[in-house]
Amino acid sequence: MKIRIVEVGPRDGLQNEAVAIPTSVKIAIIQALLNAGLNEIEATSFVSPKWVPQLGDAAELWPELPAGGIYSALVPNMKGLERAISVGVERIALFTAASDAFTQKNINMTVDESLEVFGEVAKVFRQARPHGFIRGYVSTAFECPYAGKIAPERVMDVAEKLLRLGVDEISLGDTIGVASPNEVTTLTKMALGSIAPERVVYHFHDTYGTAIANVAAALELGVTAFDSSAAGLGGCPYAPGAAGNLATDDLVYFMERQGLETGIDRTKLAKASLPILEFLGRAPGSKAQLALLGSLPPAVGA
Amino acid sequence: MKIRIVEVGPRDGLQNEAVAIPTSVKIAIIQALLNAGLNEIEATSFVSPKWVPQLGDAAELWPELPAGGIYSALVPNMKGLERAISVGVERIALFTAASDAFTQKNINMTVDESLEVFGEVAKVFRQARPHGFIRGYVSTAFECPYAGKIAPERVMDVAEKLLRLGVDEISLGDTIGVASPNEVTTLTKMALGSIAPERVVYHFHDTYGTAIANVAAALELGVTAFDSSAAGLGGCPYAPGAAGNLATDDLVYFMERQGLETGIDRTKLAKASLPILEFLGRAPGSKAQLALLGSLPPAVGA
Repeated sequence: MKIRIVEVGPRDGLQNEAVAIPTSVKIAIIQALLNAGLNEIEATSFVSPKWVPQLGDAAELWPELPAGGIYSALVPNMKGLERAISVGVERIALFTAASDAFTQKNINMTVDESLEVFGEVAKVFRQARPHGFIRGYVSTAFECPYAGKIAPERVMDVAEKLLRLGVDEISLGDTIGVASPNEVTTLTKMALGSIAPERVVYHFHDTYGTAIANVAAALELGVTAFDSSAAGLGGCPYAPGAAGNLATDDLVYFMERQGLETGIDRTKLAKASLPILEFLGRAPGSKAQLALLGSLPPAVGA
Repeated sequence: MKIRIVEVGPRDGLQNEAVAIPTSVKIAIIQALLNAGLNEIEATSFVSPKWVPQLGDAAELWPELPAGGIYSALVPNMKGLERAISVGVERIALFTAASDAFTQKNINMTVDESLEVFGEVAKVFRQARPHGFIRGYVSTAFECPYAGKIAPERVMDVAEKLLRLGVDEISLGDTIGVASPNEVTTLTKMALGSIAPERVVYHFHDTYGTAIANVAAALELGVTAFDSSAAGLGGCPYAPGAAGNLATDDLVYFMERQGLETGIDRTKLAKASLPILEFLGRAPGSKAQLALLGSLPPAVGA
């Protein structure tokens, strides 16, 4: 069985970084990720540079993306869509959540308001890109930092509304990385009851170290597509290693050890994120990457 | 369901540390772990101080152990047993492996030679401590750093020989932290086919970030006892975060989020290992501990 991994490091991994990263540095890491075998990459976001300065170079970055990749970009509204279309984007991602409290703080709309906007965005995108691809994110799919636990029924309601708007796949996000496998099993059973497995993607963060166990739970039920970020980028500056995305390095190690094919070169992957980690002065948030790069000696003792 | 956690930090977590840790510092961390609710603690090893200088203070440490804990000590041979008995040890652990290549390098005996020694050790211990408790470690239960992958049949052969010597429980160790859930499921099914679930313990290291997923796989089949080390101590000095034991902090977060009772205070636990981390100049190897101590802000983005 072939596993599909969507590398979100260049967008989700970098968007919270305060230090401005030159477009050339972003291009270099994307090239390295591509060389490691990661062909699906969420490269940037056409969000307003005022909101996320780090991704303000989206329009300059896009034409520079190396050949051979399947690239997507987050699009928050019509203005972002126009910018994206003008530079040739053919795969977009729409970002909403299962919690109004979260979308209010994060995109300044209720969930329903965001769905209204996305309905228009999806329609215009389809006209411009009849063969384009649309991903819909449902973040805070397990718990919201402001509203607490989220009922899976609520998550499914939002997911189904996104599907009715014409999105091609749903990415369910454990935005703050708190979920454990029981919750993933419950939501996955519900999701696969109404959505085809190939249209369901999980987007785990690894704040409490449960992400790989959550992947295992979803995989067990037939989900085969996962988002991750090289080196677990996406961390919180003052809590190193915490709050980052599930590290692509850890995900690939897990899949390969489980006997599942990813087509990714683990050593090239482990090295791909080193320049950006160095640029950010950040330690790897991936145990598998550290193990590979640290060339561990045989452990002694139990 | 009540989960049993055996804290092995003071022994397995510290034995590879080059910097000599004063007995008083060890006592302080054990007291803090006890205060956090960890009552089963593998406190030290009566191995020759020549082999493991770090634990050379076992005889001095033992009488100083704070009241209220269920303490055990590793005993490598008759000489170690005599030292252990002389200071009042009532729970011992015998350490062997499923790989001759590993025991040769680690304890300078073949597996069968170690079992011969342990047969004598167990007999003498039972005479001295009729109500004592014996744990048998089977390390390299999935893979040996020298001999590669280990067949589960070989692991079971060693485990059954230990049980025939009269050990009360078996701790199956993924010594180098490379296993993934499929392997754990296979070995666990085999183990529970001939050993009562309450006598089977898993001892995972988290080198590649799979430990929690492995715990989930074993738990699913009925294993409820796990070894772990506060802050994931047991790491490799020049690969921070790598090769450490499964962090007790991550294990407790996982169990509690799964709705399982551990009786452990996560905040007290997260703080318990800080003094030793500071002493060793080491960053926490636990994501849950970092998240707790870093007081994470709500994440932004998917």
